Amino acid sequence: MRSHFESYYVHPKNVHGELLVLTDEEVHHLSRVKRHQKGDRIRAVDGLGTAYEAEVDRISKSRAECRITETRRLLGEPAGELTLVQAMIKGDRFDWVIEKCVEIGVKRIIPLITENTIVKAGSGKINRWRRVALGAMKQCGRSVLPEIAEPRTLKQTVTLGADCQVRLIAHGSEGSRTVRIPEEPAVRSPKAICIVGPEGGFTDDEIRMAADNGFTPVSLGPRRLRAETAGIVLTTMVLSQWGELC
Amino acid sequence: MRSHFESYYVHPKNVHGELLVLTDEEVHHLSRVKRHQKGDRIRAVDGLGTAYEAEVDRISKSRAECRITETRRLLGEPAGELTLVQAMIKGDRFDWVIEKCVEIGVKRIIPLITENTIVKAGSGKINRWRRVALGAMKQCGRSVLPEIAEPRTLKQTVTLGADCQVRLIAHGSEGSRTVRIPEEPAVRSPKAICIVGPEGGFTDDEIRMAADNGFTPVSLGPRRLRAETAGIVLTTMVLSQWGELC
Repeated sequence: MRSHFESYYVHPKNVHGELLVLTDEEVHHLSRVKRHQKGDRIRAVDGLGTAYEAEVDRISKSRAECRITETRRLLGEPAGELTLVQAMIKGDRFDWVIEKCVEIGVKRIIPLITENTIVKAGSGKINRWRRVALGAMKQCGRSVLPEIAEPRTLKQTVTLGADCQVRLIAHGSEGSRTVRIPEEPAVRSPKAICIVGPEGGFTDDEIRMAADNGFTPVSLGPRRLRAETAGIVLTTMVLSQWGELC
Repeated sequence: MRSHFESYYVHPKNVHGELLVLTDEEVHHLSRVKRHQKGDRIRAVDGLGTAYEAEVDRISKSRAECRITETRRLLGEPAGELTLVQAMIKGDRFDWVIEKCVEIGVKRIIPLITENTIVKAGSGKINRWRRVALGAMKQCGRSVLPEIAEPRTLKQTVTLGADCQVRLIAHGSEGSRTVRIPEEPAVRSPKAICIVGPEGGFTDDEIRMAADNGFTPVSLGPRRLRAETAGIVLTTMVLSQWGELC
């Protein structure tokens, strides 16, 4: 099964034996944008790790019925699980972090509220972020929809990494404490959690709280990376170290 | 000298002994946005590798005269030189590649024209890209303005890497040829050139031409990265390997 063409999203409840039913905007995309017809082969993913190759059988305005010809588990998924905890930032830059980090291979993104965070997120914004993640999953050939969690405070987040071999907090401080990302642990499905702060940086108290909970402060070098760049760079460095980007 | 606050840009011809003169939008930013006054300390960079710490002396509508108190060479600059050759892409996504890769530490970006490239760039667009690079340089604490070259074809580009230890072409092919990025060469100022293609990918002929000129095709993993993501990820991987991101 090829991973290099765009997938449709099929809700798990719409898979019945050999039958797979696309609904809502997926039907529109299939029939109007891609102009697929009966007999065409498509791919669909359920966001829970199952990818289907299927043949279009019947298209109506509200649904497209497809016959499953092949099923695969965890297509396009990394072995390791990276949780990115990213302080919320203004405008569409948080959307960018989500899109890029889903492509690169993040498992979960937790929008973070810190002392210097000035952005707020209501359910409308969170729903938009989830649609961005869904779009990126379909586009890049993954089969698991990365979770976009409800926003949390740092205090609620630092206790989450107990089962992670790698716990990092990006800290672009004036002092040039440069800590390398620890070597890949010798486990089959490594877990990592990475925290990236807001433009204003973390306070000393916040860094101390993270350190007290086992997080290693890492500098990302002498150039000051914008918050969204730091999230993408750190995700790339961890996934690359896990051998997931080659 | 701290590298972690935003710099002003001073044209090299506006530095005279101990005097440094800001002009144009830099004056506006200094007096109107940042509301600096006589006696305030600022930092300026000339885009050619010199960073100045200076004290504001006299502000008029069109110029701000500052007295240089400290000078440093190559502040915020990586030791290695990475040239990113990135196929032109639509909308503001090329701007993003420029902004992010300047922050990460690229030396030069060459907009690439390939067989599958549908975007054209006139002088207006190239000037915009150069302004994006200038803004990113000032923001991230670099002192050299990365070059945004005139667009070139692949044929014009593949002969450029003769003095580079690392020559890569990102190739998200269906076949899963996975090549690791070669280990860091044992030179003090390593040079690399990385080519990233358009959404439609490179043709077989293009990959062959690059390979014939010493470029190694590298896959960036099983997930299909968008063109702009590929540029940012590859830049991160090379700079990270050079120890420039820790």
